[in-house]
Amino acid sequence: MPLLYFEDFTIGRSFDCGTSPVTRDEVMEFAREFDPQPHHLDEEAAKRSILGGLAASGWHTCAMTMRMFAGGVLSLADAQGGIGSPEGRWMKPVRPGDVLSMQAEVIAARPAHSKPFGFVTFACKVSSQKEQVALILMTPIMGRRP
Amino acid sequence: MPLLYFEDFTIGRSFDCGTSPVTRDEVMEFAREFDPQPHHLDEEAAKRSILGGLAASGWHTCAMTMRMFAGGVLSLADAQGGIGSPEGRWMKPVRPGDVLSMQAEVIAARPAHSKPFGFVTFACKVSSQKEQVALILMTPIMGRRP
Repeated sequence: MPLLYFEDFTIGRSFDCGTSPVTRDEVMEFAREFDPQPHHLDEEAAKRSILGGLAASGWHTCAMTMRMFAGGVLSLADAQGGIGSPEGRWMKPVRPGDVLSMQAEVIAARPAHSKPFGFVTFACKVSSQKEQVALILMTPIMGRRP
Repeated sequence: MPLLYFEDFTIGRSFDCGTSPVTRDEVMEFAREFDPQPHHLDEEAAKRSILGGLAASGWHTCAMTMRMFAGGVLSLADAQGGIGSPEGRWMKPVRPGDVLSMQAEVIAARPAHSKPFGFVTFACKVSSQKEQVALILMTPIMGRRP
């Protein structure tokens, strides 16, 4: 498949970004390093929290989303990702044992005025195997024009 | 210091959240796992990118921000962090060798209607040692009422 350019990212086009299994070890490793709250690290404390059980850090879910986006979109494109703003909404807790999957849909595209590229925004919809949406994340990229 | 409750998070109150040194090894380790774009992994490719040199994944900066927030705010409070929405803006690239520091300022607070807690939003301002703001991140928490 040839590289995708800005012009290929038409509004409504959707990309299957594969899956990301969520292991208990990875949940706890990420939490220990970056988000050491009891509901990410301690089963009993997590049960008593509003999350009702052990759950991945929301930032871990964002990072897994970036990994799926890199594989499913950026690897096909002459583009750089993660421009501008982290913006989204955590909808449901992500649990150890979940298998996340992701669709990235183009929701906005505009060419730069005087440079050979354009800005594209994707809505990345991350779902669990229970088909619950866990995270919606807006992901802007800068795509080159041929 | 006694635990802080919802009522202690008055608008304008600011918390020093310490520092986070950014090592080249950690930048590349995070990028390999979650954001394998050339400008996070390859010095030469990074020089040719719009970032002008190797830079941390924006999601890595968010994760470091969460770590500083956990240390500087959540550890003092009867509260849970990371409720709702990731929202912010990446302002400047974060480079290996940088030392990030962070101030978290209360910008909004409202009690829940019928439950013994309230919602507090912090503007987390992450700066490099060059006093450039690298990231602004809105961070909501749920603080308990005594």
